[in-house]
Amino acid sequence: MPNLPEKRKRILPTLQSPRELMKLSQEELIDLALEIREEIYMLYDRRSVHFASNLGVVELCIALHSTFDFSVDRLIWDTGHQIYPHKLLTGRFSRFQSIRTKGGLMGFPNPLESDYDLMMTGHAGCSVGTVLGLASGDDLICGKNERHSIAVIGDGAFSSGVVFEAMNHAGWIRKNITVILNDNKMSICPRVGGLSTHLDKLRMHPFYQRFKQQLHSLVDSVPTLGKSMDSFLARFKSAVKAGLLGGMLFEELGFRYIGPVNGHNIPRLQRFLKMARNINDPVLLHVFTEKGHGFKPAVNNPSEFHAPAAGMNSGVQANCNLAPPSPKAQFAWVREESDAESISDSDVELISESVVKSAEQKSFTEVVRDSVLRLMRENERVCVITAAMCRGNMLEPIRDEFPSRFFDVGICESHAVIFAAGLAKSGMIPIVDIYSTFIQRSYDQIFQEVSLQNLPIIMLLDRAGLTGPDGPTHHGVFDICFLRPFPNLTIMAPADGSDVAGMLRFAATAGQPVALRYPKAVSGGYRDNVAEVSQGKAEIIKAGNDGIIVVCGTFLNMAKKAAELLYKNYKIDAGIINARFIKPIDKETILQPLRDGGFVVTVEEGMLSAGFGSAVLEAANDLSIDTRKLKRLGFPDQYIEHGDRNELLDDCGLNVKNLVQTCQTAMLKIR
Amino acid sequence: MPNLPEKRKRILPTLQSPRELMKLSQEELIDLALEIREEIYMLYDRRSVHFASNLGVVELCIALHSTFDFSVDRLIWDTGHQIYPHKLLTGRFSRFQSIRTKGGLMGFPNPLESDYDLMMTGHAGCSVGTVLGLASGDDLICGKNERHSIAVIGDGAFSSGVVFEAMNHAGWIRKNITVILNDNKMSICPRVGGLSTHLDKLRMHPFYQRFKQQLHSLVDSVPTLGKSMDSFLARFKSAVKAGLLGGMLFEELGFRYIGPVNGHNIPRLQRFLKMARNINDPVLLHVFTEKGHGFKPAVNNPSEFHAPAAGMNSGVQANCNLAPPSPKAQFAWVREESDAESISDSDVELISESVVKSAEQKSFTEVVRDSVLRLMRENERVCVITAAMCRGNMLEPIRDEFPSRFFDVGICESHAVIFAAGLAKSGMIPIVDIYSTFIQRSYDQIFQEVSLQNLPIIMLLDRAGLTGPDGPTHHGVFDICFLRPFPNLTIMAPADGSDVAGMLRFAATAGQPVALRYPKAVSGGYRDNVAEVSQGKAEIIKAGNDGIIVVCGTFLNMAKKAAELLYKNYKIDAGIINARFIKPIDKETILQPLRDGGFVVTVEEGMLSAGFGSAVLEAANDLSIDTRKLKRLGFPDQYIEHGDRNELLDDCGLNVKNLVQTCQTAMLKIR
Repeated sequence: MPNLPEKRKRILPTLQSPRELMKLSQEELIDLALEIREEIYMLYDRRSVHFASNLGVVELCIALHSTFDFSVDRLIWDTGHQIYPHKLLTGRFSRFQSIRTKGGLMGFPNPLESDYDLMMTGHAGCSVGTVLGLASGDDLICGKNERHSIAVIGDGAFSSGVVFEAMNHAGWIRKNITVILNDNKMSICPRVGGLSTHLDKLRMHPFYQRFKQQLHSLVDSVPTLGKSMDSFLARFKSAVKAGLLGGMLFEELGFRYIGPVNGHNIPRLQRFLKMARNINDPVLLHVFTEKGHGFKPAVNNPSEFHAPAAGMNSGVQANCNLAPPSPKAQFAWVREESDAESISDSDVELISESVVKSAEQKSFTEVVRDSVLRLMRENERVCVITAAMCRGNMLEPIRDEFPSRFFDVGICESHAVIFAAGLAKSGMIPIVDIYSTFIQRSYDQIFQEVSLQNLPIIMLLDRAGLTGPDGPTHHGVFDICFLRPFPNLTIMAPADGSDVAGMLRFAATAGQPVALRYPKAVSGGYRDNVAEVSQGKAEIIKAGNDGIIVVCGTFLNMAKKAAELLYKNYKIDAGIINARFIKPIDKETILQPLRDGGFVVTVEEGMLSAGFGSAVLEAANDLSIDTRKLKRLGFPDQYIEHGDRNELLDDCGLNVKNLVQTCQTAMLKIR
Repeated sequence: MPNLPEKRKRILPTLQSPRELMKLSQEELIDLALEIREEIYMLYDRRSVHFASNLGVVELCIALHSTFDFSVDRLIWDTGHQIYPHKLLTGRFSRFQSIRTKGGLMGFPNPLESDYDLMMTGHAGCSVGTVLGLASGDDLICGKNERHSIAVIGDGAFSSGVVFEAMNHAGWIRKNITVILNDNKMSICPRVGGLSTHLDKLRMHPFYQRFKQQLHSLVDSVPTLGKSMDSFLARFKSAVKAGLLGGMLFEELGFRYIGPVNGHNIPRLQRFLKMARNINDPVLLHVFTEKGHGFKPAVNNPSEFHAPAAGMNSGVQANCNLAPPSPKAQFAWVREESDAESISDSDVELISESVVKSAEQKSFTEVVRDSVLRLMRENERVCVITAAMCRGNMLEPIRDEFPSRFFDVGICESHAVIFAAGLAKSGMIPIVDIYSTFIQRSYDQIFQEVSLQNLPIIMLLDRAGLTGPDGPTHHGVFDICFLRPFPNLTIMAPADGSDVAGMLRFAATAGQPVALRYPKAVSGGYRDNVAEVSQGKAEIIKAGNDGIIVVCGTFLNMAKKAAELLYKNYKIDAGIINARFIKPIDKETILQPLRDGGFVVTVEEGMLSAGFGSAVLEAANDLSIDTRKLKRLGFPDQYIEHGDRNELLDDCGLNVKNLVQTCQTAMLKIR
């Protein structure tokens, strides 16, 4: 870890309130930026964290807190993983290194930690609508007030439909909000960034000035022809201005576009922020930042930097230079490097994935990807759609081998599913690969475009279950419940890697929609003698005389250990069933023990309310079977915090000990 | 009903295929338009239908089918209620008058009826993404092909985020699709329409031509400075062009904007459609139409026309003039009337509502509205948000009395909920009033912005249950299932009008999110001796020795009749419970009969899978209570067609007879 120059007195440890930033000199603010980077680097050195995106917003965060007073004004960080500098500046320095550990600080904004975190965010694109609501409420409660509401949103999130909906509304009701577009050129949809960079360069060109003068005099020479022509000319002028400045899209929606501004130059940022504050209209402030800014290895050696595991950063340490550049040098450096490949969110996510990759057993994400790739080689109708998670879902080999059958639609989950429906209708077999929690954005489309049309679309729900250190915004614990009521839909969960290929093959020929859910976990290798996947059939892993453990998903090993202990300690002979199908469930196999007076214990990585166990209950009830010896294990009716996945599963009673106890209790329910 | 001139031979009855339109003369096409209007008028005369929107697209539909061959090309009608002319032209003339009746034609596109209906649509904004998927799939399967994919979308749906997501994607991958913006000036968000009308007028002005020439020569005189300047100028020119033509927003997204064109002039439409076909890029064709076009009473007497009930149209009949205007006269008439208030979708929906309104008992929609209005008078923190359903939800009195606390965000359900979260965070008590089926668009926001933040937001789920003639796209049958797993959320369903005020008062002081679901039905008046609404408590309507009927929602009268019959015919003493709370359920009250050996039968207007009855099952299972005497009534695992609500409920066994039988069976389950 790089050392700071010895002489400086550190600012962060004694910072009482972000308001103190207003009194610091520019030199001190630059020092502060360095301290923040140092803290983030220490974190990154310890464990998998959102790294580059946080380095990118250090100056922006400082500029915001030194210009506004967010104990009064409103600030929402969209998506929220770039919250680290904000946490350091708002009283959480001493606990900062605990980030993303169980009981420690959350990796996302958390109102329980600080009043400066207004909302717990994690899904992209909500910030604009939230600040619009805040501004509207503040106006109603306090009268037209002096509070300012600011959303900071990345260019990746910007293509999300909810942002458009909110901006359209904001432009219409004209609330005094500022949307800061944090453009780090890593957008999945680079139009906005590309155009602006282009125009930014052009603005420096002397020709532009002359041309602009000529144009102005032409426009000014135009006679005034009554009100409508005035307004036409005003619009024309603003069209020309917006066209030249690259903010056309935003101006058209009713926003005042200012920028672009270098996001690593604090005084410039402050100037633009003050400008935004003085404009009594919705403002779009376009800020250029660089992900990983200030951390040279990310720029010098991007490929090596993509995949260091936590605690394995010694290789790049030597190259690391955290000496504070002067503002000017810093700016020059940013400009020079602006076209270089930088690290993206998904790259950072990859850090933890790559640990898995190097291990003997592959992650579900990888096993699924490999099976999809095989399917695509066999069947040219199969195509893949991702919503900006090409890296998270490890789809690069698919993208590279089948570029024409690979679609990245950006952070647009709703559209991803509609688009898939169109593809399916044309005769393709689309595979939509989206995290369980993010596919909630497609709920209405799964209803209308998938289930109602009964189209052969395969939905891969990655990260189904507890995602670990990301916490409640990212846990995928609701999918079983929200998908179950949809007719026509088949829902499956592989117990381990052995199930994946068969399930995908089944899905590709099902002729109707299929969802496949699997967790962010190792796939557990391959079993021998795996039964073929066939519609609605569970797999009997082991028969049992006293009852069965029904595993929905990845708890096969837990079930095996529990069965061993049950027999060893209590002479209870428990069978093990791999449910495979969540809808339709295999009633015959799963309910038989109940008919015979045995117990059935279901285990799932999802909410108990309306979940898989509930489906078993319903089936038993439909057949008037006594359900007293049926017990369900899963998540209780509360949000589960962040932490290590296994630790959290343990907390929720999804462990061998509780499984054994539950089987015992279930067994004893009726004599 | 107006009579057609006798001499003409009718075209519709003998039309074998829409391809025949290509051979008809312009005069015949105009006659055909008249015949279509006549058929739609006949329908409107019989029952509540989508009327004005269909009259508005008659010429557009004819122009489409006479320019393209949709047995090869692709056509998606967004939202889908303007499908009537299309149905008439695609082989469904003989069954047309059966529309929206049980067993008859659906009021929306339906692939089961015709290959010309590609998707069953009903929720707004999906058409663009669907045609993009179709075009992408067609290209992959057939190679870059000559098929054209066309979406027709209204300006109301255009503000929906999914449209933006799809257009952004389309502009990026540059598929050869055409999006027809059907701009009938009834948008909730009139910017697009307003700007275009303005520019449309300006284009006629002679000054514009001179100015454009000057501008062109200025732009042309600019020296070429290498590649980047070329591209700058190209962009500048297109910015100017787009700015002048009003299509800036679309051009910026990568679409070629053409139009606006008068949507009631068939030859002009054909010309523009051919133009669109020849452009090898995504095209946005802007078409002006008038809702209710050709039906003068709608223009002459809009207020009288707003509320005629089915079969009660004699009053306006006399004024009706369906004589075919010449193309020119027709155009002039459209221009003259373009600022007149026309009838909107929601007006049409009101037709059926107003029947309810005039009846002795009010609809739930109205009773809820009245309670909300009272709340707003008492508490100035309460505010209301609608997503373009001001009329459907009968919110006009609220809008008029509290304009500053009433927000119509357009067809942007996702944003509506995010916006509400911002309002709630600022200290307001927002009430989001959205149909059950449409709030599926807000699913991810209900998760993150409402339930996870635990904010005091009240969600009113109108049209929860079967909506009747609209059919499966509009039935609100999933909400209980998809909301149940969310922590922090309270879910309620009033049994009748008596429950509404108390539930709303409870919700407004709950300090956490509350959802209230109620059907499109009469509220059933007011009971005497209504118990107060208190957290998680069911209401005991009648005690019973043998068991209970638990009513979740509006089946109180059905339960009363069933209880009477059970006692009269079988001496079974059944109690009646008004569940009121779906989450948390009143375990004590509802489960007691099971403990005592009695039966419990639940009745709900929602899916059985993961529904209210399932919540009762879960609660019983958690307490190890035998559930063999528990039976659940609700909807089976399939989509329910369109038809009269009571007829459909009857089909699904939600009737007195089945309730009686179910109670009997449940009673006998164990001795």
